Amino acid sequence: MKPYPKEKNLDNHSKRGADLEKEINLSNTYYRDLDIALIYKKPTPVQVVRVDYESRNKAKITEAYYRTPSTTDYNGIYRGKYIDFEVKDTKNKTNFPLQMVHDHQIKHLEKVEQHGGIGFFIIRFSYHGQTFLVDAPTLIQKIKSTNKYAIPYEWFLEHGNLIQEGLYPRLQYLKVVDAIYFKEDS
Amino acid sequence: MKPYPKEKNLDNHSKRGADLEKEINLSNTYYRDLDIALIYKKPTPVQVVRVDYESRNKAKITEAYYRTPSTTDYNGIYRGKYIDFEVKDTKNKTNFPLQMVHDHQIKHLEKVEQHGGIGFFIIRFSYHGQTFLVDAPTLIQKIKSTNKYAIPYEWFLEHGNLIQEGLYPRLQYLKVVDAIYFKEDS
Ligand SMILES: [Mg+2]
Ligand SMILES: [Mg+2]
Repeated sequence: MKPYPKEKNLDNHSKRGADLEKEINLSNTYYRDLDIALIYKKPTPVQVVRVDYESRNKAKITEAYYRTPSTTDYNGIYRGKYIDFEVKDTKNKTNFPLQMVHDHQIKHLEKVEQHGGIGFFIIRFSYHGQTFLVDAPTLIQKIKSTNKYAIPYEWFLEHGNLIQEGLYPRLQYLKVVDAIYFKEDS
Repeated sequence: MKPYPKEKNLDNHSKRGADLEKEINLSNTYYRDLDIALIYKKPTPVQVVRVDYESRNKAKITEAYYRTPSTTDYNGIYRGKYIDFEVKDTKNKTNFPLQMVHDHQIKHLEKVEQHGGIGFFIIRFSYHGQTFLVDAPTLIQKIKSTNKYAIPYEWFLEHGNLIQEGLYPRLQYLKVVDAIYFKEDS
């Protein structure tokens, strides 16, 4: 087995990762309905080139292109704090490939920390059926200090925080946020 | 002159308001470049129905529709606080027509306040060449207590906060945020 197998269709807006995002969206709906947190997926930015106005109220976009987002997947507010995170899903068994993390995401999450917000990654190793929450500054420091193209799965067992799964919410990631970022209060 | 003239193309994704948004986007770029605040326009949500993959890296969307956003125009972080606001631009000389404010925007901004964030409206009366920042709870209370279809321009002179315009940033709206929400610190 090759040490750092390439992920296919990395930036091809494929469906990969769609399940994880769906679970996070459902969890966010639950958190919003119970007034626990106000967190939304940022829409994928689309550059619209041509629109047909068939009827006054239903404009049909007939030519458009995906644009590279400048930021991350999710943001919002929880317990009075600004929350911002990026979601990644890998099928890789032994490593998290660093090509999955883009420069603009690192820069954005660094700025979130700088401005006093809470920034993290939610990373799923689907082979292991495990989803980790990792503090952004911690992962970014690791990314900057490694000379490899990937971070071993074991690193996440040690430095990541396993997110419990359930029915409501599907991914109880705010429990982990409580434990890491609101230690004093809980 | 009719008391509450209707705005044309209200939800038709017209270009109206585009100038104001452009000025706010430029101001946000300035604030980000100087590490003053991290505030972005939320992309307009689009439901993609069909995509042509002509080449591996440039997917062309050939059928898509605008969706109604669930939230507001902008959010981000400033001085450690979550910031969220909606932008409106009216040509109306004497009134701000309430049909411009949607239910989901009111509900969202109420939740922002409830969770400890800072929520407001930026409203431009283009006839007067004036742009006001109005605290969301204040405007929402006014909307809920009036039985009219509009709020008089005079109300904004009294309860709104005029945003100074300049070169950099174009709209100095964070000065107003400082004055209203960070009184003690300045
Ligand atoms: Mg992602
Ligand atoms: Mg608007």
